[in-house]
Amino acid sequence: MFRGLSAFPLTPTTESGIDEQAFSTLVSRLAAAGVESIGALGSTGGYAYLTREQRARVAALAVEAADGVPVMIGIGALRTKQVLELAEDAQKAGASAVLLAPMTYQALTEDEVFGLYEDVTRELSVPLCVYDNPATTHVKFTDELHGRIAQLPNVAAIKIPPVPDDPAQAKARIDALRALIPDTVTIGASGDFAAANGLNAGCEAWYSVVGGLFPTTALAITRAAQAGNDAEATALSERLEPLWQLFRRYGSLRVMSAAAEQLGLAEDPNLPRPLQALPLPARHELAAALTSTGLTA
Amino acid sequence: MFRGLSAFPLTPTTESGIDEQAFSTLVSRLAAAGVESIGALGSTGGYAYLTREQRARVAALAVEAADGVPVMIGIGALRTKQVLELAEDAQKAGASAVLLAPMTYQALTEDEVFGLYEDVTRELSVPLCVYDNPATTHVKFTDELHGRIAQLPNVAAIKIPPVPDDPAQAKARIDALRALIPDTVTIGASGDFAAANGLNAGCEAWYSVVGGLFPTTALAITRAAQAGNDAEATALSERLEPLWQLFRRYGSLRVMSAAAEQLGLAEDPNLPRPLQALPLPARHELAAALTSTGLTA
Repeated sequence: MFRGLSAFPLTPTTESGIDEQAFSTLVSRLAAAGVESIGALGSTGGYAYLTREQRARVAALAVEAADGVPVMIGIGALRTKQVLELAEDAQKAGASAVLLAPMTYQALTEDEVFGLYEDVTRELSVPLCVYDNPATTHVKFTDELHGRIAQLPNVAAIKIPPVPDDPAQAKARIDALRALIPDTVTIGASGDFAAANGLNAGCEAWYSVVGGLFPTTALAITRAAQAGNDAEATALSERLEPLWQLFRRYGSLRVMSAAAEQLGLAEDPNLPRPLQALPLPARHELAAALTSTGLTA
Repeated sequence: MFRGLSAFPLTPTTESGIDEQAFSTLVSRLAAAGVESIGALGSTGGYAYLTREQRARVAALAVEAADGVPVMIGIGALRTKQVLELAEDAQKAGASAVLLAPMTYQALTEDEVFGLYEDVTRELSVPLCVYDNPATTHVKFTDELHGRIAQLPNVAAIKIPPVPDDPAQAKARIDALRALIPDTVTIGASGDFAAANGLNAGCEAWYSVVGGLFPTTALAITRAAQAGNDAEATALSERLEPLWQLFRRYGSLRVMSAAAEQLGLAEDPNLPRPLQALPLPARHELAAALTSTGLTA
C-alpha cells in the first residue's frame, strides 16, 4: 500500500470536538477519487492535538468511510507508552498501516529515536511507515539512522522531507537513502511543492496534503510521474505554484483548513487552538489562487 | 514568589507509573533547604510526558511535600483546551502559580503564541510565569512579543533562556527586555551554567535544574548574587563546570536523573521512554564530577 498517492485529510476540529460528518465526507471523497491509500491523523489530520479517545474514534470513522481503500493512521506521541496504546487502538479500528513520527519535547538522541521504533515495531501486526518530518519533530534523521530503523520488523516505508529542487540532486538523495535500506521498504515524498520532483527522482509514493482535499489534481501529477512523464508531472505541479507559495508562507495545514472552508467542506474555524485560521487577507489570496489554478472542487 | 531560587525537581517515572515516594522526598528536601519556591512539573519534571491525571496527582503531592513553600506548576500542552484543564487542576491542587511554555508541533505564529497566553491568563486566579524555552518549544520569543504578553492579566514573571557569557552583554539583554515589560513582572534566569551571570545581570530569580537536587549549592550562588557579590557568585558557579559540561553534552534532565539515582533518591531508570538513562561511560564521568565538585548530598 506504500505506492502511489496517499492522501492526507484534515480532521475538522473545534473547541467542542471533532466534526465527524465533515471528516467522513472528506475521506469518502478520497476513496471515490481512487487514491491508493488514505493517511488519517497525519500532521494535516492534527493528530498531535487530539486525545486518545478522539484518535480512536477518527481512526474508526476513517476506515469506515474509506470503503475498502487502505487506511494508514498516525500514532505519534511524546511518550513510547502512549504510542503503543495508539498503535493498539489503530489496529483495533482496522488500520492497514501506521505512521510514526518521533515527536519531541526534550531533544532525542539517535539511540532514543531508534529505541522508540524498536519498542513500537516489536508490538505491531500491521506495517509501519517511518515519518521523517524535521519541521514538526525537530529530529534530524541521518541516512545511517534510517538504515538502522528500516531493518526493524514491520517497517515498510519511509516518508521523507522535501527533496532538493534540482532533479539530479533529488535523484542522488533518493539513491543514497535507497542504498541503505532493504528493497522491501519504499520511499515516499512529502512537502507537496517538491512532490513531483520526488516522484520523478524515484519515490514510490506521495504522502500528500493537497491530495487530501484535491485528490483528482494530486492523482494527475502522480499518474504522470508513474508513467515516466517527468515533464508533465513537473508542469502540473508548477501550475499549482500560487498554492505552493501560500503553503510556504502560512503552512499547508492552515491553507488547507481555509480551502476546506471555502469549498463548504468544513466549518470556520476548524483548527484546534492555539492554531488559528488563516488571516483574512491570506484567505482572499487563497480564493484567488484556487480560482487561478482551477482547484474549485 | 518570583524572586530568589526556584528549584525544579525531577518527577521520577517508570513505564509503570510515577514513583510518588521518591518525588515527595525530592520536594521535601527543597523545602527543608529554604528555597524560595518549587517549580514542579517543569521540563525537568517531565510535564510533557505525563497524563492529565498524573499531573494532577504530582501537583497535589508537590503542594503537600512543600509544606508551605510556594509551588509553581507547569501547565504546558500542545492544545489550548488541555492547558486550560491543566490550569484548573493545578489551582485545585493548591498551586501558588503556574508556568506555561508554548509547546509546539506545528510551528506557531506570534499571534498564535499571544493568543494562547491571552486565552489562558483570562481564566487564571493565580499568577503565571511565561516560560521561554526555545530548546524544547522551538518558539523564538521576540522582545516585542514578551512585551505584549507581559501586559496580560496575571502575568507576573518571565523565565528566559541562558543570557550571554559576557557580563556586559548579559546586562544589556536583561535591560532591553526590562524596558518593554511592566515593573511588576520579574525576569528569571535559566540554563544553569549561565544562571550566576543572569543573576549578576539583574535577573530577580533563578529557575534552577541543579537546585532541584542540590538546593544548598544553588542557594549559595543565589545568595551571593543577591548580596551583590558578583565575583563570588561567578566563582561558585565556575566550580561546577564539570557538571555544566555534562549538562551541555547530555542535557540537564538526563544528567540530573542519573545524579538522583547515584544519590539513592530515585530508582534506575527514572525517565519515561523514549528518553533513556545516561550511557554508562557518562555515568562514570558524572560520578567523578559530583565528587570533584563536592555535590555529594
